[in-house]
Amino acid sequence: MKAYLLYEGKAKRVYTAKEQPGQLVLSYKNDATAFNGEKKAIFSGKGRLNNEISSRVFKLLQEKGIASHFIEKLNETEQLVRQTEIIPLEVVVRNQATGSITKRLGIEEKTPFTPPLIELFYKDDELGDPLINDDHALLLSDISAAELVEIKEKARHVNKQLKEVFASINIALVDFKLEFGRLASGDIVLADEISPDTCRLWDSTTKEKLDKDVFRQGTGDLLEVYQEILQRLEAMS
Amino acid sequence: MKAYLLYEGKAKRVYTAKEQPGQLVLSYKNDATAFNGEKKAIFSGKGRLNNEISSRVFKLLQEKGIASHFIEKLNETEQLVRQTEIIPLEVVVRNQATGSITKRLGIEEKTPFTPPLIELFYKDDELGDPLINDDHALLLSDISAAELVEIKEKARHVNKQLKEVFASINIALVDFKLEFGRLASGDIVLADEISPDTCRLWDSTTKEKLDKDVFRQGTGDLLEVYQEILQRLEAMS
Repeated sequence: MKAYLLYEGKAKRVYTAKEQPGQLVLSYKNDATAFNGEKKAIFSGKGRLNNEISSRVFKLLQEKGIASHFIEKLNETEQLVRQTEIIPLEVVVRNQATGSITKRLGIEEKTPFTPPLIELFYKDDELGDPLINDDHALLLSDISAAELVEIKEKARHVNKQLKEVFASINIALVDFKLEFGRLASGDIVLADEISPDTCRLWDSTTKEKLDKDVFRQGTGDLLEVYQEILQRLEAMS
Repeated sequence: MKAYLLYEGKAKRVYTAKEQPGQLVLSYKNDATAFNGEKKAIFSGKGRLNNEISSRVFKLLQEKGIASHFIEKLNETEQLVRQTEIIPLEVVVRNQATGSITKRLGIEEKTPFTPPLIELFYKDDELGDPLINDDHALLLSDISAAELVEIKEKARHVNKQLKEVFASINIALVDFKLEFGRLASGDIVLADEISPDTCRLWDSTTKEKLDKDVFRQGTGDLLEVYQEILQRLEAMS
């Protein structure tokens, strides 16, 4: 299925798809990284878990009418996606304060954000993915002002849908990061992955962290909590 | 004229005005500070220069229809202003890239910004006045979304007018910081000061820096360049 390697990121490899122009194969790695790559480890089985989880989440969103690059899961660690040109923005949606924002802005841990708060970060490892505002986003990417409005609107809509999905399996969606890509047609769709690597997911009852924070903070078993998320998603249908 | 000290900042003291409720006396100090107060020095005469310059600039803006807290210059180092509740935002307008933005976003020095770029910083010394976006501004201050739009619109308008003023005395307005305050009536007006402490001003011909950067970077005589700005403003009329 894979032709040649296009790009290797921290958590995934991206290949062109053999004899399928306009399609890519995303191959999920077992690497976990945090703090802009300063903390690293390999968890055998993480790639499979994130591929399974992300495939399920994209499918659930598609059923709710949210377009993404996702086509299908190919095997344990790979999925087929539509080729997009990734827009160099990380779009973060926050429903509650935790992590970087509490220190950056002196906001108390667990403060609810109503409406949800949206932040943009410029995808640039050398600069440490800095927080940016809308003016910066228009300067640093090729999107128009109308497309920026559209991206934020989509992020809000994804949040609404994902919150419902996770609430139904007793998980609070605290915050998450989205990336968007431009198709050859010019349309902008949801891209990258949606997994416990990119979301903060807390058990609604116990408040236990079921996401990459257990690795960032060294407070739990990454594979165990990712497995827990997958099991709850599998139990949905 | 002064009744009692309300607040002492890095560059000014704020007093209530005797028998004039709703009015304040701003007293300009001789202190220069940079890098969030890490670099400090006293320049005898700086308070007078900034009071003179800021009074002239606010007067010029008022002639162009831009409302501010400024009422009148009282004496060498003091001015009378309308009392406002300061909105805890620093509104930065950039016409060219220099200073923090070049490192933060990897933008080449002197890159022109067309349209001008607007940045908001949260006024909080302990947090180091962090860059924020519009969502943060609405969360951290008591302004409405409509008022934020209005503030940015005013900042753009001030930029347009100030660029013209400075161009007429052969100075390029590279960037500057504004603060806004809310009057008892609820209206939001321009407040704080506009001086070489808060603007980057380069000689249009020689590109010589005529602002606080000579102190920040230790490359020139602060009093001499502030005096140069005042002289050119005085020669205008």
